[in-house]
Amino acid sequence: MTDTKYIYNKEFSVRDYECDLQGVVNNANYLHYLEHARHEFLISKGISFSGFHEKGIDLIVTRVEIVYKYPLRSHDRFVVRLSLLKEGNVRLVFLQDIFRLPDEKLIVKAKTTSAAVREGKPIRPVEIFEAINNH
Amino acid sequence: MTDTKYIYNKEFSVRDYECDLQGVVNNANYLHYLEHARHEFLISKGISFSGFHEKGIDLIVTRVEIVYKYPLRSHDRFVVRLSLLKEGNVRLVFLQDIFRLPDEKLIVKAKTTSAAVREGKPIRPVEIFEAINNH
Amino acid sequence: MTDTKYIYNKEFSVRDYECDLQGVVNNANYLHYLEHARHEFLISKGISFSGFHEKGIDLIVTRVEIVYKYPLRSHDRFVVRLSLLKEGNVRLVFLQDIFRLPDEKLIVKAKTTSAAVREGKPIRPVEIFEAINNH
Amino acid sequence: MTDTKYIYNKEFSVRDYECDLQGVVNNANYLHYLEHARHEFLISKGISFSGFHEKGIDLIVTRVEIVYKYPLRSHDRFVVRLSLLKEGNVRLVFLQDIFRLPDEKLIVKAKTTSAAVREGKPIRPVEIFEAINNH
Repeated sequence: MTDTKYIYNKEFSVRDYECDLQGVVNNANYLHYLEHARHEFLISKGISFSGFHEKGIDLIVTRVEIVYKYPLRSHDRFVVRLSLLKEGNVRLVFLQDIFRLPDEKLIVKAKTTSAAVREGKPIRPVEIFEAINNH
Repeated sequence: MTDTKYIYNKEFSVRDYECDLQGVVNNANYLHYLEHARHEFLISKGISFSGFHEKGIDLIVTRVEIVYKYPLRSHDRFVVRLSLLKEGNVRLVFLQDIFRLPDEKLIVKAKTTSAAVREGKPIRPVEIFEAINNH
Repeated sequence: MTDTKYIYNKEFSVRDYECDLQGVVNNANYLHYLEHARHEFLISKGISFSGFHEKGIDLIVTRVEIVYKYPLRSHDRFVVRLSLLKEGNVRLVFLQDIFRLPDEKLIVKAKTTSAAVREGKPIRPVEIFEAINNH
Repeated sequence: MTDTKYIYNKEFSVRDYECDLQGVVNNANYLHYLEHARHEFLISKGISFSGFHEKGIDLIVTRVEIVYKYPLRSHDRFVVRLSLLKEGNVRLVFLQDIFRLPDEKLIVKAKTTSAAVREGKPIRPVEIFEAINNH
């Protein structure tokens, strides 16, 4: 369904409160799933989003492109698969696709561009790049 | 409809994303409405919840009792009415009732107990008590 | 820590987006955790909250009492433990306690009263009572 | 700041629960703001998102591109400005920009593509197109 080489997978189940009056997961909640999968990926590399915040470094999202292919519903299980590109010296681009389980139906394709800032100014996230390169 | 002497009112409209698959506002979102009304009340007294956090003082909720009388739906307008009790030297108790507009139908009755802490320890929130007393 | 006889446990991890500007899980999100644990418990008994909605029967929450003992933070794991009382012929009362893992620190104590309605009118949820009695 | 011809504006204030542990509005919440502004725009044209759902027609979002320029914080006021393109016979594209108030600082630029479906199949949303054309 896609040629992307995924380096991380995170499984979820839909929670009823995430569905809206159309009976499907509300569009905004997919950004929550994608964020949580990214943070869990970073933790698997030894990088804590909240820990970085306490050190004065914030990982921020600068751009999201998300294509909604098919909706998730109550009780659905799904997986967020993730691959990673570096863009220049300061940006990390996450390609994240969501597939329903167990049938692997494509639900969402997303591209998230992120950067690191210290006191609002972009920095090269050296520790993060190193941690990721060493995987 | 009630004898409570309200000292603050905050109007809202239901946003569609706040409704769940039953087509009504999800129960958890009423806590959001109640919190926002309390914070707006505090701002009206010169007290900023986020500003206090930056000074190292956190206003925390220790207990909520909420009775759901009737659900809110898409497009409904409503008002959160608020009254205030002091409980001893350290606790503030907010009585908050939600009424649909314009028919004033009772939607929710809630009692929220809050306290102030500095580095996790309860403190007497002198500035807050004074600000509230001077209203 | 408590004498309650729990009949169901559901484990979770805090997701960063559930934390607010105080750096702890926002109070409203505990209602989400409690709701999800109740729905998962019902599913374990063969009862689908969303399936019932499609049949015209809605399980609704009429009252929540929640005591916040200690806050959850980024990365915390926790378990929602659940016990169940019947109240008369129409109400189900869920006692739900949240404990941080692995240290079993008590985070939240909650009592949720629920009822079943068909077209807005209370009904005796026979199927639900039977499913639960047969556990 | 931009040459887009806006046809609708919706003002909001940040609510504290919308901020995350970085102290800024969580990225997913901007999708909530954008959705609510679209639904309010449609209501201003006589089109109810939830009413259409009850008639069996669902307006769905098929794609979002969002650029985060600057974060919103606690107490910030802002406006969502909206313009509208038709794309072929079945798609509506909303351009939505968020500006902080009163300084009109650009916060977010977003492009949302939407379609209408009846029982999962794309339809030409005639009523919606007519309602919008008659503005």
